[in-house]
Amino acid sequence: MTDYNELALKLHKENRGKITIHSKVPVENREDLSTAYTPGVAEPCRAIHKSKEAVYEYTSKWNMVAVVSDGTAVLGLGDIGPYAAIPVMEGKAVLFKTYAGVDAFPICLNTKDTEEIIRTVKLLEPVFGGINLEDISAPRCFEIEERLKKELEIPVFHDDQHGTAIVVLAGLINALKLAKKRLEDVEIVVNGAGSAGIAITKLLLKVGVKDVVLCDRHGAIYRGARDLNPVQEEMAQLTNKKNIRGNLGEVIKQKDVFIGVSVPKVVTKEMIETMTEKSIVFAMANPVPEIMPEEAKAGGAFIVGTGRSDYPNQINNVLAFPGIFRGALDARAKEITDDMKIEAAYAIANVLKEEALHPEQIIPSPFDKNVAPAVAEAVKRIAREKGIARV
Amino acid sequence: MTDYNELALKLHKENRGKITIHSKVPVENREDLSTAYTPGVAEPCRAIHKSKEAVYEYTSKWNMVAVVSDGTAVLGLGDIGPYAAIPVMEGKAVLFKTYAGVDAFPICLNTKDTEEIIRTVKLLEPVFGGINLEDISAPRCFEIEERLKKELEIPVFHDDQHGTAIVVLAGLINALKLAKKRLEDVEIVVNGAGSAGIAITKLLLKVGVKDVVLCDRHGAIYRGARDLNPVQEEMAQLTNKKNIRGNLGEVIKQKDVFIGVSVPKVVTKEMIETMTEKSIVFAMANPVPEIMPEEAKAGGAFIVGTGRSDYPNQINNVLAFPGIFRGALDARAKEITDDMKIEAAYAIANVLKEEALHPEQIIPSPFDKNVAPAVAEAVKRIAREKGIARV
Repeated sequence: MTDYNELALKLHKENRGKITIHSKVPVENREDLSTAYTPGVAEPCRAIHKSKEAVYEYTSKWNMVAVVSDGTAVLGLGDIGPYAAIPVMEGKAVLFKTYAGVDAFPICLNTKDTEEIIRTVKLLEPVFGGINLEDISAPRCFEIEERLKKELEIPVFHDDQHGTAIVVLAGLINALKLAKKRLEDVEIVVNGAGSAGIAITKLLLKVGVKDVVLCDRHGAIYRGARDLNPVQEEMAQLTNKKNIRGNLGEVIKQKDVFIGVSVPKVVTKEMIETMTEKSIVFAMANPVPEIMPEEAKAGGAFIVGTGRSDYPNQINNVLAFPGIFRGALDARAKEITDDMKIEAAYAIANVLKEEALHPEQIIPSPFDKNVAPAVAEAVKRIAREKGIARV
Repeated sequence: MTDYNELALKLHKENRGKITIHSKVPVENREDLSTAYTPGVAEPCRAIHKSKEAVYEYTSKWNMVAVVSDGTAVLGLGDIGPYAAIPVMEGKAVLFKTYAGVDAFPICLNTKDTEEIIRTVKLLEPVFGGINLEDISAPRCFEIEERLKKELEIPVFHDDQHGTAIVVLAGLINALKLAKKRLEDVEIVVNGAGSAGIAITKLLLKVGVKDVVLCDRHGAIYRGARDLNPVQEEMAQLTNKKNIRGNLGEVIKQKDVFIGVSVPKVVTKEMIETMTEKSIVFAMANPVPEIMPEEAKAGGAFIVGTGRSDYPNQINNVLAFPGIFRGALDARAKEITDDMKIEAAYAIANVLKEEALHPEQIIPSPFDKNVAPAVAEAVKRIAREKGIARV
């Protein structure tokens, strides 16, 4: 197997980081300097001072996204702090640029204080057209996103929540086509009640899934459980219609779909055997899934997806966030709504034509250049239909 | 005359801003993605988590400067706010890149609160290797710079103060060669007691000028004056050895050098006539100087410099800040000291050989590609000699 650790160290060291700032204008002579800088630059300044919206015409704001993290929940590494988080945020900026032409800049904040993070992002807003929150631990990430959505006029999107939810929904849409089941009829267990699990659950309910049971390490979250935090309390109200109790092994029985955003190896072949016919298993713990695809197949799973690039059906956020922001920026949308997320999921799913669908190919490759433009189009369309576009 | 206002609007609109983020690495296939992003990216994260200094090896921090402004003192436009300030800050980023290969990013803050600006810059520090403060009004700019210098381990530089001071000193060094006078023997009047005037005065005293009298709109600042603010009080102690009083017309008499960083047209031909032989006049008010070069010459000035590109001897900050930061970043200097500023000034002056000096050519052109590398070398050398370099 390729040693990506060694390759990554080499790549990062040789390039001394992954992003760089380029000038779009020349400053080689007096005329250039007088136009890009003083005295000419005063004129666009005056235009913006006169009418704030002109900032979208004369500056880079229209295309600039902040990738904001405090480094508290980075990949599988946990709370490694804002310095160690930079390679991930620069990587995100690289993906934004490569897949959707979005300029993105890493903002790694040296604080874990919720109020301070909110305040700082608000103070930074002038130069940014959108905010992508990243790798901020729960439950602070919920409060931070919610408040910023309310208090800013530019789109705010926590990718760990919504990017993941969108791509899971996209995969599920196509998997259900092959399984010949409908969203309205399936029962789903989501294992992992962190930010991704909660966002996935909410989006699935929004799109009409019959029932979802959300589990954390103690098992099903149900109404009346004594040890729920406020976010889980809210989820208990929304999910688990039959209010069943029990651990994952009990909850997974007779479910149509398993979605794991938890930890390695918590699902066994025997547990898969208890699911319905043509069961769908998205085991996305990283780098080792909740159950390996071979084992899930052996247990009777009809379709298996993971987060890994070395297996089929990779559920990868890069299918969503670049196009989401491309569309939101192009429409100058004030926010990214559930409608936009759902349409984005269908756009991703529909990049694969029916005849291309196969249990080992339910989701486009992360390198499929058709995905981001399709997502951007869908997002833009909804933004305009719903009156949240400003252009 | 060229209408730079029209040209500037067109340039900014057509390019939709002046900066863009580029990726230094490809992500075209699974191997690329696994190296630049997950799973490989975890390894440089771990390396930085283990040893913070590795952030300079594996991320863009080593070359990234924040151009920080609150938009309160932008060009001659005043307090136009953080949105309208963006074209200037992007322009600065363009100059950083073009002249010295420095990656610079505009941070325009939606607050004027001193403490909040200080705190925000500190929170943002992880991704930046240096902080360039820009167009923040006095006296807040002094407090902000001083505190950040104390509280951060990366170089902090308020360009309106120190960039201007360095380039003025560079011009003065060469002008005095032609006038056959020595810094130790000249008496100087600095008109304008804002951030630039104060920084110029301090640097001139540091380098051994015989005496400086600093004037504001009310005339000379002297010990015992009743209406001084704390910064002026400090300046009264440092300057004006003879403690003279009076307005600019009285103070300028028998001075060798006039340095104006104030407002248009406050100096007359008659005032220049009262200066010493071979007087030197740097009239840098923008866009109209304290006295036009033709008039100063008519009054007997030996050498005249302005901020304008359409007259000889343009005193332009772009001669200093790109090379200053190039040197500071390359040495990973913890700060930018007075010694470094003085050596930078000599480096700029010395780009023009003695035989090239002429009253109409005392300072290199802003487009002279030899300047930034010479400044960077000087800064790096001093940083290493004084033990403030970390590499």
